[in-house]
Amino acid sequence: MPELIQGNAVIGQSGGPTAVINASLVGVVEGLRRAGAGSAGNPILKVLGMRHGVSGLTKGEFHDLTDLSPDCLDRLAITPSAGLGSTRDKPDLAYCERIFEACEKHNIRYFFYIGGNDSSDTCRIVNELSNARGYELRCFHVPKTVDNDLVGSDHTPGFPSAARFVAKACMADFMDNISLPGIKINVVMGRHAGFLTAASAMARREARYGCEACGDGPQLIYVPEVAFDLDRFTQDVSEVYDRQGRCHIAVSEGIQDKDGQSIGAMLIQGQVDDHGNAQLSGSGALGDQLANVLKARLTPEGGRPVRVRADTFGYVQRCFPDQSPVDLAEARGSGRFAAALATSGDIDGSVAIVRTSPIGVDQPYSAKFERIELSDVAAKTRHMPAEFLDGHNNVSQMFLDYCRPLVGELPRYERL
Amino acid sequence: MPELIQGNAVIGQSGGPTAVINASLVGVVEGLRRAGAGSAGNPILKVLGMRHGVSGLTKGEFHDLTDLSPDCLDRLAITPSAGLGSTRDKPDLAYCERIFEACEKHNIRYFFYIGGNDSSDTCRIVNELSNARGYELRCFHVPKTVDNDLVGSDHTPGFPSAARFVAKACMADFMDNISLPGIKINVVMGRHAGFLTAASAMARREARYGCEACGDGPQLIYVPEVAFDLDRFTQDVSEVYDRQGRCHIAVSEGIQDKDGQSIGAMLIQGQVDDHGNAQLSGSGALGDQLANVLKARLTPEGGRPVRVRADTFGYVQRCFPDQSPVDLAEARGSGRFAAALATSGDIDGSVAIVRTSPIGVDQPYSAKFERIELSDVAAKTRHMPAEFLDGHNNVSQMFLDYCRPLVGELPRYERL
Repeated sequence: MPELIQGNAVIGQSGGPTAVINASLVGVVEGLRRAGAGSAGNPILKVLGMRHGVSGLTKGEFHDLTDLSPDCLDRLAITPSAGLGSTRDKPDLAYCERIFEACEKHNIRYFFYIGGNDSSDTCRIVNELSNARGYELRCFHVPKTVDNDLVGSDHTPGFPSAARFVAKACMADFMDNISLPGIKINVVMGRHAGFLTAASAMARREARYGCEACGDGPQLIYVPEVAFDLDRFTQDVSEVYDRQGRCHIAVSEGIQDKDGQSIGAMLIQGQVDDHGNAQLSGSGALGDQLANVLKARLTPEGGRPVRVRADTFGYVQRCFPDQSPVDLAEARGSGRFAAALATSGDIDGSVAIVRTSPIGVDQPYSAKFERIELSDVAAKTRHMPAEFLDGHNNVSQMFLDYCRPLVGELPRYERL
Repeated sequence: MPELIQGNAVIGQSGGPTAVINASLVGVVEGLRRAGAGSAGNPILKVLGMRHGVSGLTKGEFHDLTDLSPDCLDRLAITPSAGLGSTRDKPDLAYCERIFEACEKHNIRYFFYIGGNDSSDTCRIVNELSNARGYELRCFHVPKTVDNDLVGSDHTPGFPSAARFVAKACMADFMDNISLPGIKINVVMGRHAGFLTAASAMARREARYGCEACGDGPQLIYVPEVAFDLDRFTQDVSEVYDRQGRCHIAVSEGIQDKDGQSIGAMLIQGQVDDHGNAQLSGSGALGDQLANVLKARLTPEGGRPVRVRADTFGYVQRCFPDQSPVDLAEARGSGRFAAALATSGDIDGSVAIVRTSPIGVDQPYSAKFERIELSDVAAKTRHMPAEFLDGHNNVSQMFLDYCRPLVGELPRYERL
C-alpha cells in the first residue's frame, strides 16, 4: 500500500437532500476512522465536514467530525436531510481557485463529496485542478439522488427511500380514490428521469404489471422519457374513467413534449438556480394546470363537473423518515467504500452500486460496490431504459422486479 | 335489558376517508358479533356494509360483513381509507324517504354511520325520521374526522394519525429547510379548525413551545381561528427570515380574513360539493399564491430573488399508512362502544372520547368513551380553544401537551 500523505479529510453534501444522505456521511466517517483517522501517528489528522458543501469550504466553515461518538453517528445515519447543510453552488474557475486556497490553507488531502450528477462534476473539476497543480488531493464522489439518474449504477442511494414513500403514498391515495371516486393526479419528483414516478406502480396490489388485472392505480404513469401530449393524455384518462368510473395518475414533474420542452416549466413562473435549472418542485402549478385541462375537457356539456384533484408530493418525498432498509445500508456502505478506496491507494473515483442478483428471479437481492472513474459519472444523466417502460403510459414487469427489493416491505391491505 | 328487535344491522362510512376509519368499521362489526349478531337465535340477523354510505344504502348495495374472519378484520382495521367506499351525499327529505324505504325493504333495525359533523347530522335526521314514523331503528354515529372539529370530544379518531403525518413530514421538511435555506410554506388540511395545522408544531425538537428556544420550525403557524392578514403575514415572515436566514411556515387551507372570507377560496377556481363547500384540497393554489406574494415583497430591489417554496400536503395526510397507535385503538374501540350501546338498550347516540388523564402532567395518557346525544354533535363545528393558541401565529404549550400522547412516538434526530 502506497504511503498516505499527511493532512485532513473533508466531507461535503451537495444538491437536494435525501432521507439517507447522512448515512453516506456517516459511512465516510466510519471508513476513515477504520483506517485510523484522528488517532496518534495516522496520516489522516482530522475529519472535517463542510458547512453547506463547497460554499462552506471556501469560507473555512467546518464541523469537526473526528471524534463523534458511535451513538451520535448511528443517530445521524437515520436522520433525514443533509446534516452538514447542502448547497446548489456549481464552481466555476474562480470558485475552484477559492476551493484550492481553502484546501491548502486547511491542509486538506482527502476530499469526499456526496451528491448527484452536478456534484460529481464539481468533484471531477476539483480533482482535475488538483492534478494540474500537483497538489495531492484524493477526490471521491459518493452517489446520492432521489432521481436515480446517475450512470454506471444499478440505482443510487436516496432513490429507494423516496420510491418507498411514493409507493406507500400512492397506495393509500389510491384507496382514497376508490372510496370517493374521481380523477386524481399525483405529481412526483424527477426532472429528467422517470424512475421515481415509475415507482408509483409499486402501489398496485402485488405490484402487478398491468392495471387491467387488479384494476389498481395508478392506471396511468407519465415519465420524462416519453414525449407528453396533452390530447393523448386526455384520451388516456377518458378511457380509464369511462371504464372504471375513476382514474389514478402519476405524472413526473419533468414531463416534456416531443420537442423536449418541459410541460411544467411552460406552466410555472418559477425561479432558476445557479445551474440554470427551472424550479419544478415547491409548486403545485403543473398538477393544477393538468387538472384544469381535464375538468374542462371531460365535463359533459351542461353536466356535473368531473371531480379532478391534483396533489404534488413535494419535498416530503425526498426526506420522509421511513427509509428503505436496503437504502440505509447501501448509503452507509457506499460512504465506507469511498473511504476505503481513498485510504488504500486509489486517488480518485466514484462509487457505483452493481446488482449481483438477477432481476425478476426469485432470489435474494444482492449488490456490490465498485470504483468507477469520476468522468464516467460526472454531469451525465441516466434515463429509464426502454425495457422498464411499457407503451407511453405504463412501466414494465421488469421495472417492478427491479424496484421491489429496493423499496423494502410494503403494507398489505384488505379489500372488501 | 330490553328485548332487541329482530332485523339486520347496517354500517356506513361517510365524508373524507382517514387512516383509521376502517378500524371503526371493524370495531362496530366486532361489537355486534360480541352481542351474538349472525348467530342462531340472535335478533341481529346480518351485519351489512353500505357501499358508499347512504348512497349505496338507497340503491340496496351492500357488502355482507357478518362472517368476515378475524384475520380479515385485523387486516381491514389497519387498511387506510374507507373500505366500504364513502360518499359526500347529504340527504334532503326526499333522500331520507329513500333511506327509509331501503331500511324497511332490507329489514334494517341497527344503523351505524361513521363520519364527521355532516355525517352525524345525516344520522340525526335519519333518527328523527325513524322516531316520527314509529319505525324502531337504533341510530348511532361513530366519530371520524382528521379536522378534529367534532364538539363534545377531547379529540376525534382520524386526527391523531393525520397529526402524526403532519408532524413527521414537517420534521423532515424542516431539516431540508435547514440544509438549503429559504422560505418554505406547507399547507395543511383543516377547513374550519386549525388542529391539524397546529400539530406541525410537534415537529420542533422536544415539541417545545416557542421557536426561540430551539430555533426549530415551523416558526410560524396560521390557523383558521385567527384572522389572516397578508401584510402581517409578510411582516412575520420577514422578521424570522432576517433573524434566521430561513423560515418554515405551516398554513391551514382554511385560513380566512377578518370578515370570515376564505383566503384559499378567493384564490382557487375550484369546485363546490353537495354541502356547498368549496374545494380546498387537491390543489396547490393557496400555497403557490402565498409564495408568490412573499417572493414579490421580500426580494430586495435588483437583488437575487428570495427562495420561496410551497408544498400542499394533500390527500396523503389523511390516509398515510403510519397510524398513531392510540388512534388505531380508539377508532376501533369507539366502534365497539357504539355497538355495545346499540345492543344494550340505547336507541340512539354518538360516541365521545373523554380524556381522563390531565393534560400537561407527566402521567400516562388515558381516555374513556361516553354516549352523547346525536343533537349534541350534529352539524356543529369545534374550533381550537383560546388556550391552545399563542398570539396570532403560534400554538401554546398546552396544545403540545394535548397533542403529544395522541400522535405517538416521533423520531429523534441528530443535529450537528
